[in-house]
Amino acid sequence: MKIKIQQKILMEHLNYVIKGISSKNLIPILNCIKFDLKKEGLYLLSTDNEIAIKTFIDASDIDSIDELGEIVVAGKYIYDIVRKLGNEVINIEEVIDAQILITTPTSSFKLNCNNVSEFPNLDLEFSQKPVILNQGLFKKTINQTIFATSTQESRPVLTGINLKIRDKKLIFTATDSYRLASKELAMDKLDIEDTDIIIPARNLMEVIKLLTNDDESLELHIFANKVVFKFNTITLMTRLINGTYPDTSKLIPEEFTLTVKVNLDKFYTAIDRASLLTNEEEKNIIKLETKDNFLILSSNIPEIGNVEEKVELLDKVKNNIKIAFSAKYMMDAIRVFDSENIDLKFNGEIKPIIINDADESNLIQLILPIRTY
Amino acid sequence: MKIKIQQKILMEHLNYVIKGISSKNLIPILNCIKFDLKKEGLYLLSTDNEIAIKTFIDASDIDSIDELGEIVVAGKYIYDIVRKLGNEVINIEEVIDAQILITTPTSSFKLNCNNVSEFPNLDLEFSQKPVILNQGLFKKTINQTIFATSTQESRPVLTGINLKIRDKKLIFTATDSYRLASKELAMDKLDIEDTDIIIPARNLMEVIKLLTNDDESLELHIFANKVVFKFNTITLMTRLINGTYPDTSKLIPEEFTLTVKVNLDKFYTAIDRASLLTNEEEKNIIKLETKDNFLILSSNIPEIGNVEEKVELLDKVKNNIKIAFSAKYMMDAIRVFDSENIDLKFNGEIKPIIINDADESNLIQLILPIRTY
Repeated sequence: MKIKIQQKILMEHLNYVIKGISSKNLIPILNCIKFDLKKEGLYLLSTDNEIAIKTFIDASDIDSIDELGEIVVAGKYIYDIVRKLGNEVINIEEVIDAQILITTPTSSFKLNCNNVSEFPNLDLEFSQKPVILNQGLFKKTINQTIFATSTQESRPVLTGINLKIRDKKLIFTATDSYRLASKELAMDKLDIEDTDIIIPARNLMEVIKLLTNDDESLELHIFANKVVFKFNTITLMTRLINGTYPDTSKLIPEEFTLTVKVNLDKFYTAIDRASLLTNEEEKNIIKLETKDNFLILSSNIPEIGNVEEKVELLDKVKNNIKIAFSAKYMMDAIRVFDSENIDLKFNGEIKPIIINDADESNLIQLILPIRTY
Repeated sequence: MKIKIQQKILMEHLNYVIKGISSKNLIPILNCIKFDLKKEGLYLLSTDNEIAIKTFIDASDIDSIDELGEIVVAGKYIYDIVRKLGNEVINIEEVIDAQILITTPTSSFKLNCNNVSEFPNLDLEFSQKPVILNQGLFKKTINQTIFATSTQESRPVLTGINLKIRDKKLIFTATDSYRLASKELAMDKLDIEDTDIIIPARNLMEVIKLLTNDDESLELHIFANKVVFKFNTITLMTRLINGTYPDTSKLIPEEFTLTVKVNLDKFYTAIDRASLLTNEEEKNIIKLETKDNFLILSSNIPEIGNVEEKVELLDKVKNNIKIAFSAKYMMDAIRVFDSENIDLKFNGEIKPIIINDADESNLIQLILPIRTY
């Protein structure tokens, strides 16, 4: 392999594939990036077996392709070296078997390479009928749900986002069993059989970091044990989580004894302040009650003091509620709404609290209350 | 005490005094901020006994002073509460003994207070003959030397910056015994007796964070066991480190067998790249040698690879050198020069390397080499 390429172009693509490498991996080959130089351009590939990323630099963006070939080199080192070179033309050349020379007029790096044949097959196939959607919309949907996934490995299925496809709808659901976030996307045309998969949240985070063109589209190629995402110059595979996702469809009630509308920003900042006098070990519990035309939020740490926050109700209400919940969970849930106002829906002090917004009714947030009264 | 004050003004001053509180302190009163409301304005005070900070808000910047008095309140809580209130008028009032009420139209916080009489005396006296210098110059001087102080408590004197005053000169010195940074400031008028003190680096960091008006002046009031800094609205006391600072005056040679001049930026980036193939456990050793009209920097990690960087010499040289040093120490040392070019001065491979710049000759950096050849 022998190539001359602008540092800036190579760096952009190394930034993509470096996300496929976990620095904690003990198997050296899984810390590597594969360069595959073909006539049509340069492919860069990385994988830690759970996620695999491929990107492509077209020959027209390369200064000179002098000798086709493949190399596999330690990802961390090639990434840092290219990053610290200025924006000039870099020569990369396999000088002897399994050793490359990276040079500019003033720098000369020799790096030992790994065996090309040991690099795993990335398994980047495409399906006949991908789901095609807008990158910006997908990113927003994931951001509105992913925080509700569990970080505890004791129930692996809850560490992913559940994607169901049925009736021309994509339904994204995340829950850690204390709260739930769910968003539905109605698709105009969707010619794909019913689907029910669990995508690891960790890998979805990497996908959305790479989605830079909000107006461009993204393809999801869904298989039994993996999803392959295709967007921009990138192909990204993530394994799925095995197991059955809990049936959450019956958790969201149809009717409520009390619905209150509040200004999102005022409600958020009030909770943020009320949470100052709570203990993190106790999940930052704050109490909420309706009183006249206000929500009253309160909390206390006995030895320090107490706080009471008032938030104006935008509609008159007849019923009243007294309920307690985790300030952190409530703030996570309401932060993802774009709207000016939100609705809080109650069915009593031990029933789930539902948060949504009339203008964005396809997004639902649920929080379990905490018994204190 | 009873006061009405704009959140923005109170926050600015809480930002100053919060730096006097160490979050690790186990003595509750040392985690507190004292409010002292007098006719002329509001004083805020904090101390952890090693450092003490006082700031003053003039009555003209206060909406209303309704009742003079003192309170002592948990610093972390009052700071976070005021920070999270919007920029509106805040009422703070001592409602019953040792309890304050902090209110805005929508928020109401009750905080328990500590006993005013337990708050330590801050010891903020002034000397008759302070050293007066420009804030920007002092900040620059500390930044150019402080990184060379030791972080190891085994030799406490090395964890501070040594300030010597003699012959109308201020001499700042920092060393961790592997490297040394020294800067002299010549003062036009300086009517103060010879001085030799060690100021804790940790506390100097807090001082320079608070120096926001580069063109304004700063007063140093020096006492046997403390320095009191006076600037802007702030008075800050730091204890001194007891002990004798090592005599470093003979460490800087007068003559050198080789002096080379290089472009600072090119030398810095070359070291930065060469350090990629070094081990942090081995202090990031890189080798330097002169060859024709270049400095050659090299390093290697046997299993990974090696690197060679070339940096052009700006003057012709007759002698040659082969020497090795810590890339990290060299980068720390040269980063603080403002100049385009720097001089590297050598007396052989086991003698200290001196770095300075003809245009900024009052700043000297020294690094001990590491024996490898």
